[in-house]
Amino acid sequence: MKFIKEQIDLIKEKDPAITNTFEVFLYPCFKALIYYKISHYFYKKKHFVIARYISEKAKRKTGIEIHPGATIGKHLFIDHGTGVVIGETAVIGDNVTMFHGVTLGGTGKEKGKRHPTVGNNVFIGSGAKILGNIIIGDNVKIGANAVILRDVPDNVTVVGIPGKIVKVG
Amino acid sequence: MKFIKEQIDLIKEKDPAITNTFEVFLYPCFKALIYYKISHYFYKKKHFVIARYISEKAKRKTGIEIHPGATIGKHLFIDHGTGVVIGETAVIGDNVTMFHGVTLGGTGKEKGKRHPTVGNNVFIGSGAKILGNIIIGDNVKIGANAVILRDVPDNVTVVGIPGKIVKVG
Amino acid sequence: MKFIKEQIDLIKEKDPAITNTFEVFLYPCFKALIYYKISHYFYKKKHFVIARYISEKAKRKTGIEIHPGATIGKHLFIDHGTGVVIGETAVIGDNVTMFHGVTLGGTGKEKGKRHPTVGNNVFIGSGAKILGNIIIGDNVKIGANAVILRDVPDNVTVVGIPGKIVKVG
Repeated sequence: MKFIKEQIDLIKEKDPAITNTFEVFLYPCFKALIYYKISHYFYKKKHFVIARYISEKAKRKTGIEIHPGATIGKHLFIDHGTGVVIGETAVIGDNVTMFHGVTLGGTGKEKGKRHPTVGNNVFIGSGAKILGNIIIGDNVKIGANAVILRDVPDNVTVVGIPGKIVKVG
Repeated sequence: MKFIKEQIDLIKEKDPAITNTFEVFLYPCFKALIYYKISHYFYKKKHFVIARYISEKAKRKTGIEIHPGATIGKHLFIDHGTGVVIGETAVIGDNVTMFHGVTLGGTGKEKGKRHPTVGNNVFIGSGAKILGNIIIGDNVKIGANAVILRDVPDNVTVVGIPGKIVKVG
Repeated sequence: MKFIKEQIDLIKEKDPAITNTFEVFLYPCFKALIYYKISHYFYKKKHFVIARYISEKAKRKTGIEIHPGATIGKHLFIDHGTGVVIGETAVIGDNVTMFHGVTLGGTGKEKGKRHPTVGNNVFIGSGAKILGNIIIGDNVKIGANAVILRDVPDNVTVVGIPGKIVKVG
């Protein structure tokens, strides 16, 4: 219940378009993270098929695909959400904001830990693809449609294909 | 009813793959714009939760997310549509064509009018992200996966990240 | 039935996250290709509206939109799948892998054959847009969010907007 209250406060804080607490229950992000909590529970108990069934159902209902094995910190906010993909071995820190179309995925070349580790207070623009077992530092901003294939240090802004640092601090 | 007839004529004109009037009723664009008309009606009456409920339902059914507050001109054609996001304060002119994955969104830094204003006869390629309270001129073409963060003058073609003018007139 | 067995083997081979044969039935790719087989059957019999009805239903359920007229080789694997669009006159070779958000689409300028022809053993990263009646050679790799508007020779890697060759062989 604490999680639900936190989510409501978070969405009301983040989205300037919101007018009413009831609207929060319509947010795909809100639904997707509740589904994730449940699928992650079954995943940890090694009920992989049930876990995956729940995550696929969540994807159909919200457009957001979070693998049950992903590790997610506090206060993740996913705006809109259609096309978001978060891989099995992805790790997300606290206070991360991401938009629709963001991928934390693999390159198809790695085994084991093959998805990114994202720091705290990271902002990821719509359509950005972050691929491979790389580390994104704290307070990083990633531009829309950027493609990130290497580690990104703390406190920078990265844009383009492949992602280049355009601003520090 | 006039709107429905216009939409049917529009889709038949725009999509070379169409074979039959009945196919129009299967188009996500057709459904999404009818849902938008209804949600926009409730939005203007300040029934924000109902309006938002309808727009989220439309998104689940069509993949196209149009905020009930958006202002849309005549003859908008959205092809395919999955992942399209049109923000609350976006304004779209007449005869605009956009493909799936297009975003008319915010940068997260502005309040109030925080989404783009798009002119007439604009063509927006799949995956393009147009962000912030900027103005896109008339007869502009925007390439696939382009990221547009500044005003674009009339009669140009813009591509890349960030968008650059590659053709005038 | 042979097709279903092949698909099961393919998905188990391609996805490192899979743990169990039953999970295959949850894959959007698996469902989308079965729907495509049916819609393509009706398309060839010229029952275009039924064909399109089935493909739109498949899109709503899987996020993957394959036009019933598309021509698809053996062992196509579509990972995740949300936002994939494959046009009516697209042709796909054998052993092709593509991720979510990939488009084999048109430029809006051509009639007749207006979508790409993709060779064998091609790998297409998430969000890539391949547009127009162009030819993608065998063993080509296309990077995430790339935009491809011209022919690509065999055995190369192409990235960026517009796509440039960054690696040969």
